[in-house]
Amino acid sequence: MEKRRYSRIDENDQINEIRAKAKKITQPAVPIRMISLGGLNEIGKNMTLFDCQGDMIIVDCGSTFPDDEMYGIDLVIPDFTYVLENADRIKGLFITHGHEDHIGGLPYLLKDLQVPVYATRLTKGLIENKLEEFNMVRTVDLREIAPGDRIRRGCMTVVPIHVNHSIPDAVGLAIESPAGTVITTGDFKIDLTPTQGETTDLKTFAEYGTKGVLALLQDSTNSERRGSSASERMVGRSFETLFRMAGDRRIIIATFASNIYRIQQILDLAIRYDRKVTVSGRSMIKNIEMAFQLGYLHTPKDIMIPPEEEKNYDPGQIIIITTGSQGEPLSALSRMSGGMHRQFSIGPDDFIIISATPIPGNEKMVTKVVNGLLKLGAEVIYESMYDVHVSGHAYQEELKLMLKLVRPKYFIPVHGEYKHLKRHAYIAETTGMDPMDIHLGSIGEVLSISETGMKVEGSVPSGQLLIDGYGVGDVGSVVLRDRHHLSHDGLVVVVFSVSRQTGRLLAGPDIVSRGFVYVKASEELIAEARSEATAVLDRYRDYVYKDWAVIKSKIRDRVSNVLYKRTKRNPMVLPIVMEI
Amino acid sequence: MEKRRYSRIDENDQINEIRAKAKKITQPAVPIRMISLGGLNEIGKNMTLFDCQGDMIIVDCGSTFPDDEMYGIDLVIPDFTYVLENADRIKGLFITHGHEDHIGGLPYLLKDLQVPVYATRLTKGLIENKLEEFNMVRTVDLREIAPGDRIRRGCMTVVPIHVNHSIPDAVGLAIESPAGTVITTGDFKIDLTPTQGETTDLKTFAEYGTKGVLALLQDSTNSERRGSSASERMVGRSFETLFRMAGDRRIIIATFASNIYRIQQILDLAIRYDRKVTVSGRSMIKNIEMAFQLGYLHTPKDIMIPPEEEKNYDPGQIIIITTGSQGEPLSALSRMSGGMHRQFSIGPDDFIIISATPIPGNEKMVTKVVNGLLKLGAEVIYESMYDVHVSGHAYQEELKLMLKLVRPKYFIPVHGEYKHLKRHAYIAETTGMDPMDIHLGSIGEVLSISETGMKVEGSVPSGQLLIDGYGVGDVGSVVLRDRHHLSHDGLVVVVFSVSRQTGRLLAGPDIVSRGFVYVKASEELIAEARSEATAVLDRYRDYVYKDWAVIKSKIRDRVSNVLYKRTKRNPMVLPIVMEI
Repeated sequence: MEKRRYSRIDENDQINEIRAKAKKITQPAVPIRMISLGGLNEIGKNMTLFDCQGDMIIVDCGSTFPDDEMYGIDLVIPDFTYVLENADRIKGLFITHGHEDHIGGLPYLLKDLQVPVYATRLTKGLIENKLEEFNMVRTVDLREIAPGDRIRRGCMTVVPIHVNHSIPDAVGLAIESPAGTVITTGDFKIDLTPTQGETTDLKTFAEYGTKGVLALLQDSTNSERRGSSASERMVGRSFETLFRMAGDRRIIIATFASNIYRIQQILDLAIRYDRKVTVSGRSMIKNIEMAFQLGYLHTPKDIMIPPEEEKNYDPGQIIIITTGSQGEPLSALSRMSGGMHRQFSIGPDDFIIISATPIPGNEKMVTKVVNGLLKLGAEVIYESMYDVHVSGHAYQEELKLMLKLVRPKYFIPVHGEYKHLKRHAYIAETTGMDPMDIHLGSIGEVLSISETGMKVEGSVPSGQLLIDGYGVGDVGSVVLRDRHHLSHDGLVVVVFSVSRQTGRLLAGPDIVSRGFVYVKASEELIAEARSEATAVLDRYRDYVYKDWAVIKSKIRDRVSNVLYKRTKRNPMVLPIVMEI
Repeated sequence: MEKRRYSRIDENDQINEIRAKAKKITQPAVPIRMISLGGLNEIGKNMTLFDCQGDMIIVDCGSTFPDDEMYGIDLVIPDFTYVLENADRIKGLFITHGHEDHIGGLPYLLKDLQVPVYATRLTKGLIENKLEEFNMVRTVDLREIAPGDRIRRGCMTVVPIHVNHSIPDAVGLAIESPAGTVITTGDFKIDLTPTQGETTDLKTFAEYGTKGVLALLQDSTNSERRGSSASERMVGRSFETLFRMAGDRRIIIATFASNIYRIQQILDLAIRYDRKVTVSGRSMIKNIEMAFQLGYLHTPKDIMIPPEEEKNYDPGQIIIITTGSQGEPLSALSRMSGGMHRQFSIGPDDFIIISATPIPGNEKMVTKVVNGLLKLGAEVIYESMYDVHVSGHAYQEELKLMLKLVRPKYFIPVHGEYKHLKRHAYIAETTGMDPMDIHLGSIGEVLSISETGMKVEGSVPSGQLLIDGYGVGDVGSVVLRDRHHLSHDGLVVVVFSVSRQTGRLLAGPDIVSRGFVYVKASEELIAEARSEATAVLDRYRDYVYKDWAVIKSKIRDRVSNVLYKRTKRNPMVLPIVMEI
């Protein structure tokens, strides 16, 4: 039963059903093709291409964090192959908001692609900050847009629509094309009592719904959460309670550097409670500076003080806004918790609020920071103790509302792991959508959408590009497998010298190990490994021409076997021969 | 203010206060010393020593999982140095229940220590299973105890007290000593409607409270959770709803192999819904077999079927109980989700219940399994969708109730990270305890407790013993640091041969790398590294006697520098010289 409910690329019967449905309508309709290069069946690196009558636009270009198995990798971005192959057809790149999972891939794409990039004011500022790090700010054609603008690129017209999110200036996009209008919500929630600006522009979404929408792509992040997300305003109310509890202690608040609304709430409370505000953490300082410049933050001048002046005030007169709400080991809060911060040392006079929820995978790091701060005597408010954080993503009731307003012909849940997309599809069904009009996609898949049907038309290259230091994509599966192997049981090098002319052993085999055992306590084991290697070499002693690949492989096997038998460990065994 | 509230080993003023308080009473009192070797400021490897008038007993001997940074480590156990040094004084080892964090260290301790081990019936069975794996079951003096028994060991008498937990046969312990009675709750909750057996023996705890209790050690796991834990019975009610939802689909339930209560509830529902039950996963099979043998599980004979007979039934007639509720990569459920299970393949006819909450750190693994199962078309019930799991540890109101019943003179929160202990201390304060009578301890610390006071009397060796394969404690910080280094950016070996007589270079330097870059695409970089190494060797060309340590260190520096400059990576550089 379940398998009949949603169309899936690997289920041919369903695709055939879609095709049959499409054939019923005799008039051929213009299609728009949607190709996602990230954000489907994964969290992060969001990037979607739309292709209509030969013109292409891109929505977002994000990055994501490496997963636990990607040892040494700094960042993951989408595979841009298909974009670069079609560079001449790309008319514009539209950014929905300034979070890393929507802008983090930009420097890597834009070094190879000349295309105008469209973003709202704050988003543009954040992109500029990022491009500056890469010395690219002058070479990129970055254009400011605002909700309600109509940007025509090729046969498509893109209209940004204001939405609420945990960062200001977020927009959804209506893409008007000859095939019909496609709407992508971007990351959004519906905050009916926002602390700044307007509620998500429900009216415009509804108007598109009235005119007719071909397809809706909607944020699936919180599709598992029942009800509606809480308003950002609630955080302010919790802060007030906590500020009173803090009394004459110093208040330290850790939150996301991009959550300008929350920072403004803190500034407002600082005035009310007669405290000065100082800022810690590189990204926090940078973002707050830019937000002041662009007018997204405002406060009387004398509220903000530089960190070095903090010591001139009593604890009860101070608020420190800091990074580190996810327990990131190098962040300001983490350094404070370890007593390693250059400027601020923590003690019983500190009242610390971690205004965030740990992202899955970060719980242990956050716990470590909390333990450290508590041990230093501070009071720490974290996780669910008070309502000090709200999500920026729509819950189930908000998702349903948007579906009801936009009333799309087709629905494509995006921005989530498979479990999120699947649940989101189910939610759309409960609003009355036909399961056959809902598509659970995959990255790289070419989905053709028109008035007469929706079908998968094959695929394009897609995947993950791993960034390690300066290297983009030079760390592949072999390198990662080796790192994994090395990390687990370390390394044993078996090195020996032979005469190129006679093939005779001149020196060695010597054993050098790292990360395997404590060598001084394992002399016997090392000797045994050496004698295994010697045995192999002895067997080939009288051959003048030797196949070193075979001999090395035999040494590897025998040394590995004896080490495993003795230790139940599998170090990487690396035989090296030097011909002299 | 905060720092005056709790005594801490590193705060001398507080210790002095405690001493001053102790001195007020002129009569010298007999002390009992408590030494924890695990479970304070950490989750897992619980182990506590009690020492009174020269006699010692041990409570529990657990293991814990390695943290993310302990590459290649299989298991972590307490440092037993102090126990082994005092082997002749140890009169008995008492086990509160059969979870790994209370019994996992036993084989490693008992191979070096002859001591009677006391455990209740099911716990004894689980210990026997474990000792069998180590071929130790005949050499250990394992004795069965039951709640209400009075076991005299030296000057102390130990009385097990029945408590509820997520495994049957759990007990707290009252330790009656010349210094007074110390009570340790073990892991516990208060289930007022248990599915089997009695509620935690509140009466006995209260009676001890009436007679007078010197100190209480209490489980801090859930000290952050408000209210009371839900009854195991609630899970059964959820299962019933879900069984009806499952209809004619096959039901697969993943849960902890030791949660016999839950397994019994599934067996009871199997009868009611006319389904056969089969079992998957090694530990699940083993535990269920033993629980049947010992009478902890019961069901009509024809309910249980072997896995190979499962295919003879319709999906609607089957329940599979399986391991893998934490997404463990090698578990039965994980293999099912990847289509790799030998016996069971998943499809739209499956209704899967994950009856557990992900332990912090396991969320991503569970999500991966859920995604896999959903993609195969199964319906999956997980996390908070229904009440399919309850915790086995007391929440705040239960902790307060126990404190009120036992009314100890001193309170020592145990079994938790610092944040749990700290919160637990605060909870005890709200019940009216004097903060000075609450001690936040550390492992290794010797805490002397008597009627006249509580004080820290120094410390004994304590810490973590890492188990990697057969090796116990042979992987130390150097090996772990090397594994970490290797995992991050891989390895570059620089190898060369020289003449022992002339000091001349005979071959090399050659560069061999693993886990660093994709070599074929990086020939230039490798050539550059080689020429750096050559430059160092050239400089020392004319020295006959060479200090290879210095030369290797110079090669390491120069090669590291050039690689970092080019790649922003820091591989381990390993120079090897062969003298011929």
